[in-house]
Amino acid sequence: MTVPDIDQFHAIAISSLAHKLAAEGRSIIHMEFGQPSTGAPQKAIERAQHILATDPMGYWESQPLKERIARHYQDMYGATVQADQVILTCGASPALVLALTSSFVPGQRVALARPGYVAYRNTLRALHMEAIEIECGEAERFQLTADAVAAIEPVPDGLIIASPANPTGTILGDEELKAILKVCRDRGIRVVSDEIYHGLSYGDPAHSVLEYEPSAMVVNSFSKYFSMAPWRLGWLVVPTDRIDAARARMGNLFLTPSALSQHAGLVAFDCVDELERHLDTYRRNRDLLLEAMPEMGLTHIAPPDGAFYIYADISYLTDDSLAFCRRLLLETGVATAPGVDFDPVNGNRFMRFSFAVSTDRIEEAVRRMVPWFAAQPRR
Amino acid sequence: MTVPDIDQFHAIAISSLAHKLAAEGRSIIHMEFGQPSTGAPQKAIERAQHILATDPMGYWESQPLKERIARHYQDMYGATVQADQVILTCGASPALVLALTSSFVPGQRVALARPGYVAYRNTLRALHMEAIEIECGEAERFQLTADAVAAIEPVPDGLIIASPANPTGTILGDEELKAILKVCRDRGIRVVSDEIYHGLSYGDPAHSVLEYEPSAMVVNSFSKYFSMAPWRLGWLVVPTDRIDAARARMGNLFLTPSALSQHAGLVAFDCVDELERHLDTYRRNRDLLLEAMPEMGLTHIAPPDGAFYIYADISYLTDDSLAFCRRLLLETGVATAPGVDFDPVNGNRFMRFSFAVSTDRIEEAVRRMVPWFAAQPRR
Repeated sequence: MTVPDIDQFHAIAISSLAHKLAAEGRSIIHMEFGQPSTGAPQKAIERAQHILATDPMGYWESQPLKERIARHYQDMYGATVQADQVILTCGASPALVLALTSSFVPGQRVALARPGYVAYRNTLRALHMEAIEIECGEAERFQLTADAVAAIEPVPDGLIIASPANPTGTILGDEELKAILKVCRDRGIRVVSDEIYHGLSYGDPAHSVLEYEPSAMVVNSFSKYFSMAPWRLGWLVVPTDRIDAARARMGNLFLTPSALSQHAGLVAFDCVDELERHLDTYRRNRDLLLEAMPEMGLTHIAPPDGAFYIYADISYLTDDSLAFCRRLLLETGVATAPGVDFDPVNGNRFMRFSFAVSTDRIEEAVRRMVPWFAAQPRR
Repeated sequence: MTVPDIDQFHAIAISSLAHKLAAEGRSIIHMEFGQPSTGAPQKAIERAQHILATDPMGYWESQPLKERIARHYQDMYGATVQADQVILTCGASPALVLALTSSFVPGQRVALARPGYVAYRNTLRALHMEAIEIECGEAERFQLTADAVAAIEPVPDGLIIASPANPTGTILGDEELKAILKVCRDRGIRVVSDEIYHGLSYGDPAHSVLEYEPSAMVVNSFSKYFSMAPWRLGWLVVPTDRIDAARARMGNLFLTPSALSQHAGLVAFDCVDELERHLDTYRRNRDLLLEAMPEMGLTHIAPPDGAFYIYADISYLTDDSLAFCRRLLLETGVATAPGVDFDPVNGNRFMRFSFAVSTDRIEEAVRRMVPWFAAQPRR
């Protein structure tokens, strides 16, 4: 066994170039990363300012925040979660590390959709677990199906579900989700569900796997709906029989999340009005982009049910999405993410637009991209 | 292979009891955890307040902070470190996870001193690596020696060095450190050095392994000297041939540390006057405790060269340090850490006092503990 090579995100290279161009005076529109351009909710910021002014703080695990998150599952999904089942983490990424190390051992096989968030595959690899990638095409809306999970041989030890998904924004229908969970139960597959984009839906809201499967582990964070990405605060919900395993790993591998972020995160739950206004912005942005897609010649896209992404097939223009995104950036100032970050096999003919920016930025991006795409030679 | 059981910190149980007693109105003195009771430096707080008021922030890796940390190695140790070798992390704990996963694979053997910080052993175990514990007694000031490292058979893949150490505060002498590093070089042992207590020395300052061994990985953080434990900001210095491996793991397993903490951490480097006053407080506290130790009957202690700990042999009073610390807390309100957190073999006859609190709290703790210890029956 050797220390495995792990890919870095190519979007980081795009972003670095974008910042370099901005420093040279170019007008840049950042659509390469999956993060809201809005800051934390105003009341959360005010709470943080108050704490900074009055409390030296210490290592801390906020019991009120754990209780508030547990209640969130009752309020939003009708699912019963005890506060003890909630492990506060330094974001969703470490929450996934916790989930995987608490559930699986090196050599075990964990299935997941391709395309998908690159860190799933890379984190599994870094932990010496085997990522079993299930190719999910346009016909399946780039999502897993119960049939696909039932067909994996030999039976995998685990399955990562992501809905709404990154990079596509597609949401698993409730019936399909239940069918997938039934297959997992029947085959003894442990489920890890990444629900980081919950709250960001443009049609029916996404269901939590905890409505149907109390043995699942659920990753979530304050980075997307709550607009607090740089605060590095997330959580993992674990089944009661894994509380000790997950808590022990949290304490040893990570200790605690930022105390200030925990204070602010608790208040963020009371800022729904402000957060729903962000969602209104994303909805407008999504509509603008969906309207522009045919003008850009992009007719094969995943239906963006949620999150703030559009994943588009650009195979008629390129077979090198990284070079294509680089050229788009250099020639228009619009930074996007190449599909190779999400799909090592077919990603070279896809790209991802993130629309979690202000609407005027999206309007400007469309103004720049429509003529540019129209002028690209077809393959 | 099964998901291994990992111990939780027993000090957490002591601390929970302490907080419960405080909530019932008891006067509690917290000496159980290794964290400064002082907050972040004033200017760092002011910087954070300014950022909160003006900047929505985003996922971020502060290049100025990486450059400042690199310069710190030149200024403090005369060691040349490039900014690219510095990986910013969410504290020292994830920095250790990064160091271990970038250097070793499951099944490999990593040696370390016993007693030692419990998370070393537990994190190795969680990552399916084998912790080779080297018993270090009072004669070796509870530290590794070159002879001990030379005698490990078969040759381990790695070695964790901690100086100043937790729980003892002992510092490896410069000659011994060099001798240990030479043994490691000769035997092909990769070194991970935890330098989190650097800056907190009461005699000669501790040397960084980077002065002598550029291939070593060095863990450090803003939690101790910089008094910013709850801000969760640390760093890992990696050798040039491991930059890509460590950066890729950081991006996938953790993404980034808190943007606000990075802003504040950069300013903390300019707050040496304030931070040295904390060190003056620790020095007074240490003197008070060292003076009280014989009155408490504690004559076998590790020489606390650095950090803010005293590790004391209590074998003449108990063979169950957890029960002993619990009783001390219940009867005097002074919370301490049991030796079993640091040494699964001999820890039942040791306890750790953390003196990173205000001097008046130490004075009060001594007033309570001296008569209590005197009244304890000898075994």
